[in-house]
Amino acid sequence: MSEANIVLPPLTRNEWTLLWAVLGSALVALGYGLLMVWSVLRCDPGTPAMQKVGKAIEDGAMAYLRRQIKVMIWFVLILDVGLYLMYSHLYADQGPGHPLALGVAVAFLAGVLASYGAGYVGMWLAVKANVRTAAAAMESFPKAMKVAFNAGTVSGMFTVGFGLLGATLIFLIFREEAMRILVGFGFGGSLAALFMRVGGGIFTKAADIGADLVGKIEAGIPEDDPRNAAVIADNVGDNVGDCAGMAADVFESYEVTLVAAIILAAATLATPQFQADYGANASSFALKLILFPLLIRAVGVFASILGTISVRLKPGEQDPMKPIIWGYWVSSLSALAGVAVVNYFYLHDPRTGLVDWRFTVASGIGIVLAILTLFLTNYYTHPNNRPVSETAIASKTGPATLLLSGMAEGNESTVWAIVLIGLTILSSMWVFASEPALAAYGIALAGLGLLTTTGFILAMDTYGPITDNAHGIFEMAGVSNERASRTLSWMDAIGNTTKALTKGLAIATAVLAAVSLFKSFIDEAQLNEIGIQVNLPKVFVGVLIGGAVPFLFTAFSLKAVGRAAYFVVEEVRRQFREHPGIMTRKELPEYGRCVEIVTAAAQKELLGPGMVAVATPVLVAFGLGAAACGGYLCGAILTGQLLAVYMANTGGLWDNAKKKIEDGFLGGKGTDRHKAAIIGDTVGDPYKDTAGPSLNPLIKVMNLVAILIVPFTIRPLSPGVRATVIMVSAAMLIAAVIISHRGAILLPTPSDGEHPPAPPKD
Amino acid sequence: MSEANIVLPPLTRNEWTLLWAVLGSALVALGYGLLMVWSVLRCDPGTPAMQKVGKAIEDGAMAYLRRQIKVMIWFVLILDVGLYLMYSHLYADQGPGHPLALGVAVAFLAGVLASYGAGYVGMWLAVKANVRTAAAAMESFPKAMKVAFNAGTVSGMFTVGFGLLGATLIFLIFREEAMRILVGFGFGGSLAALFMRVGGGIFTKAADIGADLVGKIEAGIPEDDPRNAAVIADNVGDNVGDCAGMAADVFESYEVTLVAAIILAAATLATPQFQADYGANASSFALKLILFPLLIRAVGVFASILGTISVRLKPGEQDPMKPIIWGYWVSSLSALAGVAVVNYFYLHDPRTGLVDWRFTVASGIGIVLAILTLFLTNYYTHPNNRPVSETAIASKTGPATLLLSGMAEGNESTVWAIVLIGLTILSSMWVFASEPALAAYGIALAGLGLLTTTGFILAMDTYGPITDNAHGIFEMAGVSNERASRTLSWMDAIGNTTKALTKGLAIATAVLAAVSLFKSFIDEAQLNEIGIQVNLPKVFVGVLIGGAVPFLFTAFSLKAVGRAAYFVVEEVRRQFREHPGIMTRKELPEYGRCVEIVTAAAQKELLGPGMVAVATPVLVAFGLGAAACGGYLCGAILTGQLLAVYMANTGGLWDNAKKKIEDGFLGGKGTDRHKAAIIGDTVGDPYKDTAGPSLNPLIKVMNLVAILIVPFTIRPLSPGVRATVIMVSAAMLIAAVIISHRGAILLPTPSDGEHPPAPPKD
Repeated sequence: MSEANIVLPPLTRNEWTLLWAVLGSALVALGYGLLMVWSVLRCDPGTPAMQKVGKAIEDGAMAYLRRQIKVMIWFVLILDVGLYLMYSHLYADQGPGHPLALGVAVAFLAGVLASYGAGYVGMWLAVKANVRTAAAAMESFPKAMKVAFNAGTVSGMFTVGFGLLGATLIFLIFREEAMRILVGFGFGGSLAALFMRVGGGIFTKAADIGADLVGKIEAGIPEDDPRNAAVIADNVGDNVGDCAGMAADVFESYEVTLVAAIILAAATLATPQFQADYGANASSFALKLILFPLLIRAVGVFASILGTISVRLKPGEQDPMKPIIWGYWVSSLSALAGVAVVNYFYLHDPRTGLVDWRFTVASGIGIVLAILTLFLTNYYTHPNNRPVSETAIASKTGPATLLLSGMAEGNESTVWAIVLIGLTILSSMWVFASEPALAAYGIALAGLGLLTTTGFILAMDTYGPITDNAHGIFEMAGVSNERASRTLSWMDAIGNTTKALTKGLAIATAVLAAVSLFKSFIDEAQLNEIGIQVNLPKVFVGVLIGGAVPFLFTAFSLKAVGRAAYFVVEEVRRQFREHPGIMTRKELPEYGRCVEIVTAAAQKELLGPGMVAVATPVLVAFGLGAAACGGYLCGAILTGQLLAVYMANTGGLWDNAKKKIEDGFLGGKGTDRHKAAIIGDTVGDPYKDTAGPSLNPLIKVMNLVAILIVPFTIRPLSPGVRATVIMVSAAMLIAAVIISHRGAILLPTPSDGEHPPAPPKD
Repeated sequence: MSEANIVLPPLTRNEWTLLWAVLGSALVALGYGLLMVWSVLRCDPGTPAMQKVGKAIEDGAMAYLRRQIKVMIWFVLILDVGLYLMYSHLYADQGPGHPLALGVAVAFLAGVLASYGAGYVGMWLAVKANVRTAAAAMESFPKAMKVAFNAGTVSGMFTVGFGLLGATLIFLIFREEAMRILVGFGFGGSLAALFMRVGGGIFTKAADIGADLVGKIEAGIPEDDPRNAAVIADNVGDNVGDCAGMAADVFESYEVTLVAAIILAAATLATPQFQADYGANASSFALKLILFPLLIRAVGVFASILGTISVRLKPGEQDPMKPIIWGYWVSSLSALAGVAVVNYFYLHDPRTGLVDWRFTVASGIGIVLAILTLFLTNYYTHPNNRPVSETAIASKTGPATLLLSGMAEGNESTVWAIVLIGLTILSSMWVFASEPALAAYGIALAGLGLLTTTGFILAMDTYGPITDNAHGIFEMAGVSNERASRTLSWMDAIGNTTKALTKGLAIATAVLAAVSLFKSFIDEAQLNEIGIQVNLPKVFVGVLIGGAVPFLFTAFSLKAVGRAAYFVVEEVRRQFREHPGIMTRKELPEYGRCVEIVTAAAQKELLGPGMVAVATPVLVAFGLGAAACGGYLCGAILTGQLLAVYMANTGGLWDNAKKKIEDGFLGGKGTDRHKAAIIGDTVGDPYKDTAGPSLNPLIKVMNLVAILIVPFTIRPLSPGVRATVIMVSAAMLIAAVIISHRGAILLPTPSDGEHPPAPPKD
């Protein structure tokens, strides 16, 4: 295989000690996570009414996950058998049942399980924590804050702990081949994340929009009103999409960037230039470079814990955003300091004996990128900044100007986000300008740096759906406590901001993870000599098709939300019609039916996007060749990043423009401005919660599929096999398109009007 | 220079005869254009009231163009001197005052003049024809149809005539160096087209939205009401953006694809494989391939004329779309037949003596792409098809669902459009699968085929603003003639569709022209060996930045429309306030003031986008190198195409959803559905008329700038010069960003509200 020329040097005793320390820090993360579980569970679960609502949400969320697993297991198993057969064929000349073929197949299943596991744990605690947060809010603001943030921390710590443990073990067991195993693992993980993200996104927005359309508009009842049968589904969706999807998604980037850095360090050793530069010390120095990424990750564990501990409301403090931002700074700066300390004691230039600070600088660039990305998102979506204010003011002249203003700001924000990523790549490469052999390693270190504070970032993210749910439970349980209600409303608004912040970061990690994987792709495709030349027509066409896929995916997910919302509307209407007691509060609606309906609809809608993600890279790779497939990935990364940030920020901005007006800006609730802002918010909802965040796992799934299949495209294949692969993947694509056009459901038949009318006869 | 290895063989007597025939057909196009001018001008210019309105529009349009030329002349002159100095430096070793340096500088100026010329002529006749169309409508429907279409034909014929004449002469004079001269010419042409497109787009939508906001919403008067001071500006905008901008834009693609095909034919001769394949016949066969593109263009002239002649309403025919579609079929099929005839008599395989039909097939693929692109656009934007119907039906649940539905359809449409382009590239290459030396020539032939029917397509496009204006003039002149009014309304609606159709085609030509230019870029950058490898980090960053530029450009133009509209609103308000007689129809508003205000605003707003288009490729080329600049172009082409079609189709779809409802669908005018559709239409207006169409010239300008500067990036430059270039272009970019953030004009100071409010104290 292509990586056969990379040989990892044997570990010395010193290095073994360090490895044990890394494994120890993974256990620290898990231990701290368990501590947080205990601290949340021992809190008061609230009044019976609240517990009842909480239980309904919990049941719905778990039912959703079970149903999804049931549907997806077949898709996963078929892919797994396919992977095993493919790789057995690849290693057929080395005898049957090659361990790597089995390894990839098992790793794929493990990836799916790990991803669902990370999602499951995060969600399990989130649905326990939401009701406890609501109960704590009745006690005091700092208490509620603590419960919600601690629960979020669990998601962060488990992801980091399992991620570090898993990657270290895979590295120890498979060594040179770790990357391939991890690609299988990553594929499983990303695919599961894709399902959770897309399914959860469709679920949550279908329930949300459906509930709004039938509740607010038709029946004239307020949001989160318990008479609306779709409100529980709305809350379930927050957990399914934001908790489970995000954790699964980031988990995979965390693994891939880590192992990519390790493999790139090993590849550096193989270059003649590195050998010449470091002479006799080359091997021992390379070993240090190989272990450095693991040490950075271990530093990240402690930095994240330090950060979460620092999130404490000071006496009299009123804005929960302040301690969160403070915690983030603590976490980032301590990570930077920790990396510098490790560098100081561990990485000396073997020729001079001096500390080689370039490794801290490269990792630091990633940490700085994370900070800048958060600032950028905050600038474009925070209610007190110019973009949101200007968009809110544009509502004076109606919804159209508000929408256009938001789109313009969103378009601009995605430009700066991608420029930041570009600068990160360039500057981390320039750090090693004098030693080009280390340039790729430098970029990998920046990717690692970006994810150093993963533990904290996921805590911040999960805080969002927990507070959102807590607020919902409080309203639905009908508790009358004005102060607690305001506390929760306020925490909910801040949760929106933290969710938006982490989305920007998640997509940046997807892009840097993809860049780290490029090296593996090139190796597997044996394109080291000629590269991926976009000036070749086939490669250029690959770029065009790859760039189109995120647009197709967006179209599919927007339509899916519309269709699923339609079923919700029908169901709520039915319940109102058949049970008039619901409106008079004499009867409770059947929340479970709505949850079931959206669950079923979301699973169906998943199939189309899932097939596109898997089939398109296969079609391009076998139809146009490995290099075109590289172009395809490049195009998909480009438009995926641009669209994802555009949709996340535009949606967040419209949401906060509405919130700003609701808080009294320009006249407040009930004005025409507010109505205009509600329209903007509704358009933005599937943008920011369905289509946008689904693009991260999409990019990663396509990347990993490409790496897994590309070894086959460069082997001599019988024309029959090739034609079959092309036809099957084309058939899957066509099926996906048909599925997502099926039942143009909003269309009554036949068309009740013709345009234009006949002109006058002369 | 890089093209020195390409040597064109001398022309034989036979070939000279053919060349004269080509020049003759260019004169035929011009002659037919003049005939159409005469046929339009001799028509009745209507009632004095109509003439008065028409005169106001004419004056406004011409004033706009004069003002733009006055502002832009300085920008153009500075660039021209810069070009001359750069190229003098490049040829410095061949003695001072090299003819090519002067040639490029003169060609650039000629390009600007030709582009403005094509725009001027088209617009000049359009503003004469609009009032005559209105007058003819009072006589009969077929008469009105004839005037409008004949006037459109003028624009098509002049563009084709001048284009063919110019390219043939440049080819005869400069031979091997023709491509470089043409790049200078194309740069001038595209830059002028960019100014006309962006300026016109900002102008027309600022006037349109401004007029609507202050007229329909504030004052409660209908559209096109003469009491609204902004209505004339609205009509002027149609001419400035759609007539002048489109003609200038397509003119340049027409030239570039032609000369690219010629140069690629010459390059084919230089390949060893071609020499080996054709032996002694290589040179004479290559000469035939060189002249074939010119012959295709000559065929296109006659096919276009045949098409426009076929646009005749049959007695009793009611739908003007039918004869236009019929004319398009006539034009396309006769072009295909003509190409086949030329091929049959002219292109035989010199080894066997048999006709080599592959050249007809490759050109035919381009013609088919044009037809398919039109069908696709028609499918997504025609009121009787599923996408528009479904979007209109989504208005039942409010504007948000209508907007989301339109966006989903638009996203999908752009995917199929880019897939069609990809298939065109692949299939035209596959036609020559057995002779890879001819593959690039095959792609160039497809690009040529796409533009064969340019004359007809521009006629179809210009028909749109003429009928739009005719309808406006009729309403403003207050003529009471119900039948004529319905005729014009109906023609106006069809004009909307033809405009949308040609937009999809214009962007496809920009992409294929860009692909044709790739070869020149690679030559100039001396990247033939290593190509543009996106797997290299710098090139990948180039792709990221290039892909971001169309998003930035979109943000700028959307904001510019908002700002300029604000000035219109202020001015109309002032006139209503200071002249109460306007509302009571006792006093005429000062239309000229509004035209002046939007003219001035549009010029100012142009600067930012213009600087981005010129400075960004320079910055990337000098900062990251020639290969990164190639990646930059690739990224810009990708997202430019995707966004341009997305915005054009989404905007057209919303527009027609509104029209469909206005024509009685779902209850018609005045319903909530209609209101929702109006919101969609307003959002779509700057999409389809400002941001979307500006992306074609943007892509081309950036491409041509890159080709012009890339020879300098590969020469040894003193670090001082390099640093200066980087700093100047970075300063231009920063200035552009500042300009387009200047006066966040909708924002009153200070911010009148803070979010979120303080939480409760504990």
